[in-house]
Order: sequence, then C-alpha cells, then structure tokens
Amino acid sequence: MPDMMQRIALASRPDGAPKDDNFSLESLPLPTPGEDEVLVRVHYMSLDPYMRGRMDDAESYAAPVPIGGTMEAGGVGEVIASNSPRFQPGDFAFGMFGWASHGCLPAKELRKLDPAHGPITAALGVLGMPGFTGWHGLTAYGLPKSGETLVVAAATGPVGSMVGQVAKSMGLRVVGIAGGADKCRIATESFGFDACLDHRAHETAADLRAALKAACPDGVDIYFENVGGKVLEAILPLMNDFGRIPICGMISWYNAGGLGAGASAPGLSGPAIWRNILVKYLSVNGFIISNHFDRYPEFLKDVGPKVATGQIRFLEDIAEGLENAPAAFMSMLRGGNTGKQIVKLI
Amino acid sequence: MPDMMQRIALASRPDGAPKDDNFSLESLPLPTPGEDEVLVRVHYMSLDPYMRGRMDDAESYAAPVPIGGTMEAGGVGEVIASNSPRFQPGDFAFGMFGWASHGCLPAKELRKLDPAHGPITAALGVLGMPGFTGWHGLTAYGLPKSGETLVVAAATGPVGSMVGQVAKSMGLRVVGIAGGADKCRIATESFGFDACLDHRAHETAADLRAALKAACPDGVDIYFENVGGKVLEAILPLMNDFGRIPICGMISWYNAGGLGAGASAPGLSGPAIWRNILVKYLSVNGFIISNHFDRYPEFLKDVGPKVATGQIRFLEDIAEGLENAPAAFMSMLRGGNTGKQIVKLI
Repeated sequence: MPDMMQRIALASRPDGAPKDDNFSLESLPLPTPGEDEVLVRVHYMSLDPYMRGRMDDAESYAAPVPIGGTMEAGGVGEVIASNSPRFQPGDFAFGMFGWASHGCLPAKELRKLDPAHGPITAALGVLGMPGFTGWHGLTAYGLPKSGETLVVAAATGPVGSMVGQVAKSMGLRVVGIAGGADKCRIATESFGFDACLDHRAHETAADLRAALKAACPDGVDIYFENVGGKVLEAILPLMNDFGRIPICGMISWYNAGGLGAGASAPGLSGPAIWRNILVKYLSVNGFIISNHFDRYPEFLKDVGPKVATGQIRFLEDIAEGLENAPAAFMSMLRGGNTGKQIVKLI
Repeated sequence: MPDMMQRIALASRPDGAPKDDNFSLESLPLPTPGEDEVLVRVHYMSLDPYMRGRMDDAESYAAPVPIGGTMEAGGVGEVIASNSPRFQPGDFAFGMFGWASHGCLPAKELRKLDPAHGPITAALGVLGMPGFTGWHGLTAYGLPKSGETLVVAAATGPVGSMVGQVAKSMGLRVVGIAGGADKCRIATESFGFDACLDHRAHETAADLRAALKAACPDGVDIYFENVGGKVLEAILPLMNDFGRIPICGMISWYNAGGLGAGASAPGLSGPAIWRNILVKYLSVNGFIISNHFDRYPEFLKDVGPKVATGQIRFLEDIAEGLENAPAAFMSMLRGGNTGKQIVKLI
C-alpha cells in the first residue's frame, strides 16, 4: 500500500470562469481508517456543474468549499482497507471522496456497487446523481403527459439525456438543445430526441426562439431547466398555459458569481419572469436531488433494468488523471464535454 | 322603465397610470333582452386590479378591452326584465355587466343571489372572485401547515384579508403588508394578523426586508404574491427552504405596461429570481381564478358560514355613482382604497 495520496484543493475563489490557479494539486499522507471507516482507492471521479457553485462563498444550498479544502466530488473505487464489517478489501463503492486519489469515509456514507450490474462509472451518471436528478425532476414536477412537448438543454449530458429518454418513453415530443451539430446528432440518433437545436447556431435569444417555435409547433408544456440564460429567455414566451418548469440548475449563470445573483440577462428581467409565471399559470419548482434520496430505490427499480437492456442509453466523456481534472472541469463549464464528464484516476 | 342606460367605455389606452381621458361616460339605448336573456339594473359594481391589464393590448390571459368597448367588471343587481324561466323581475343576480348601469346577459352567465344570505355586495368581494382567489391560492398552492409563517401584501384588501384570516385559522403566523398605519391597524385588529408592516414607512426594499425579518423570526414559508415590486424584492431572500409562492397578481407593476413586461426592478433581475427558486427549492405557481370555478362550491361551503358568523370578516370601500368609477379605480391602483373597492350605482 502506498503511504501518500493526491488531492486537488481550492487554492483561491474564481472571479468569473475558474482558471488553473484556482486549483492546486497536493500530496498528503494516506489516512488510516478509524472505527467503522473505510479507505477507498478512487478509480473514477465525477465532474458536475454544481461544483462551480461550491467554489463561491455566496449563500447557497450547500456550504462553500473552504480555501485549502478538497474540491467536492462523488467517485467510485475499490476498498483497500476497512474497519467496517460491511466492506471488505476488493469491494467497490460509491462515495463523496472529493477530487482525490483516495478517500476515507464512514461506512454508512458509502454505497456498495456490484460490478456485475454494469460498468461502475454508471454510478456517477446514468444511475447516479445526474440520472436520478433528471428522472425525479421530470416525474415529480414535470408531470409529463403523453402528447405534450418537452424541451431540455444540455441534451447529451447525463441529466438532459435521461429527461429526454424518459419523456420519449412516456409519449412526449422531445426537443433538445445542445452546443454543436455533433451533439445534436447524438441527441436525435442515440437518444431518440425528435429534434435538437444547436444553440451556437442561434446567436441571440430571439433567433433561438424562432427555431424552437418551429420545432415545437404545439408550444412547450415542460421546460426542464438546467442552463438558464439565453435558453430560458428564448423559451419563456413559448410556454403553454399550465406549463411546468422543474429547475435543477442554471449552468450558464454559474460563472457570473453567486450562482447567478449578479448575472445580467438582457430581456429577462425579474418582472418579465414573474409575469410569464402568472399569465400562463406556470408551475416552477426548484430542487436539489439530495433532498429526495427516499426515491432512489424507486428510480433504480424503474431505470436500472432499462439501462441494462439498452432501452435507456448513456454517454460518458472520460478524462485521464487527477492532474487533468481542473482542465476537464473548466472545459465542461464551457460545454466542451460530450456526455457525462468523468475523470479516470487509475 | 327607462329607455337609456349609462356605461363607461375605454376611450384610449393608458401610457403608465390611467388618466381621466382614458375613460368616457356615455349614454346609450337600453337593450331589449333576447331569447333566454336577462336585463339587470346594476346596484353595485366591482373594481379590481386585473382591470388595469385589460386596458393594455399586450398579450395576457384575457383579451384586452377594445377601444370604445365597455370596461369589464362584475356587478350585482336586480332583474328588471327576463326571457328566462330561471329569473324573474325582482330577483338579484351576479354577472359580468361591465362598468355600466344596466347589463343584458344570457341567463346561463348569471348567478342568482339570495339577499337573505347577507349583503349582496359580498358576491363582489369576500364571497366573490377576490375572496375565492385568496382561498384557492392558499389551499391549492400555499399548502399551509400549522406553525409556518405566511406573508401577504395588500393585507386589508379582499384577497389579502381572506388569505390572512384563513391562514390564521389554520395555525400559521400571519404577517401583512399594507400602505399606511391605519390599514396596518385594521389588519391586526380587525383581521387578526399577527403583525402588519407599512410599506410606505420603508422606502427601500432593503428597509422593508429588515422590518420583515424582524416580524418573521422563523423566516417565510408562504408568500402569497399579489403585488410584485418592492415587496417581492424584499421578501425573496427571506424565503425558507421548500417555501411556496402562489401568484395571483402583481399590482405594483401593472402600470409599467404589459403587466410588468417592461417594468424595471432594481435588485430583482431574472437570474436573481431564478437562483432563489433553485437554491431554496421554492414552488412558484401562477394562477387565475377563472380556471378553477370547479372549486367554487367547496369554497362557499367552507367560507360562507364563517362569513355569516363573523369568523371571517371583510371590509368594503364604497364609492358612489358610475361617473366616479374611473377616479375610484385610479385611486385603488395607488392603494387609496381601504377594503374591497365597490361602486354603488343606485
């Protein structure tokens, strides 16, 4: 067993988009597991947009990462030492190990994985928090009905592709938005979306709105919100009466400081949003999946078999090496990934 | 029977706050009821904030009043001629007669009133659309739970006073907002609110927020939205996790054109609203009561007896004469009324 581990710490808070010097790669002694603790060598770690929020010190639903603290992340890896009867060396587990080569956590904070149930990376994406976020938000707040129209952005990402595929299976017309022609082709060809619009080909919100209007001839009943910004501005006037907008994120505003508190959105004033909610009788619900873990077994029961049979598909974008995690993360915030962004550590 | 009637027509569309010359008082021949129609002499007509929206030609949930058309309003009056077996002269009825001394409507668009069940004006306020709006919005979207805190503005108006009294009866802490010390005293002394803040005594949103924070030591679980503007800006940061915001109106923005589409709200950007909904897991629901008439019998059954016994109280502000309706309406939009604004025509 090695006696050192590596981690990436938050070196400083970003002003706008994160830069290299906001991160520092460090070595430190490998911890020794205490009572009921388990030491895991991380094989894959997850990169997700929410991590950008943790880098600010604005009030949010989770405490910020302190300066000098390990960046947060979920990961999957192999148990290499255990003081818990529930885990043996050689077991695989999911846990919030952070941006780190190893993690030492109480056994109760780990979830055992069965590698026979498919690739362990699925626990970070399609069967992990992002997939669960899409499924829960759609079913709990989107209230999809056959024949309705749903729009979701980041269509090839792990949230958007889950939302779109589940909605398709329920008989909805599904229109995606993604960055670039390649991703749009993946959305329609691999994930079965009815249409997918390239937001880069539509410079302004008005342009994008015109394209969306053509792609959604019956208007939009559900807008699954994970990006904010231009897409939101484009789509609000297209919402049908009694439309639903589940909000799980707003990545386009994350770099604006304070999760969008200071972001500007020309054409998207507070009163304009409020007016749309009123005059179209919209139902808008913000949520974070960690408040809804009670539904995780239901999710696994519904979606797990569909992933196993290929009825629900997923796409992963795997970077190599902990030292490359900051670059992969910064690229992801610009839409540089195609599919669930993962870092392979071993 | 007279052979002429009076009405107030929309003479021109207002630019900002309505002015006298947006309205014209006209005489015209009294209509003769056709098949199944009923002619009513209006005794009382209702003035409500939503009418301001009808004066604009912006897209909204209802068609605008055309230039030269009669201003819309509900009213109560006495049947003076009827071609329907359901109505006899001398009966009292509620209908959408407009700003007019008389109205001629199909019998199926009228609701018969029993004057023995209390003053007929109640059909315009506490037991009419405003009271029903407050009750439905609170119970369907506010989802009140004993021990929670609710805030509602226009606290002495027919919506706010209903919301506050129903919430109090369900065990909530109820904090009102109103314009002026007199209205605040009425909210606490007549309507039983726990506290009421005078928004005129708090010039800025930040001032109002500080006062609200003191009045809501456990934060705000339900904000019943009927005003928008400074009050919304003050309260959003005070919302508790999982808070609910039913939206039935936003009177402070109605004069800004297009129901607030062009309103400015310093400190209340679109991203700021969206962020609050996300990070506090809020549920925001816009509604208009005309989509929910199926619940009216339930409302009457619940609230009617409480009004009869005085358990739910109401306050009316009665102007005299159709010719004074525009002045009363313009005053109401500035908060000049105390209680449900009604015009007595006879």
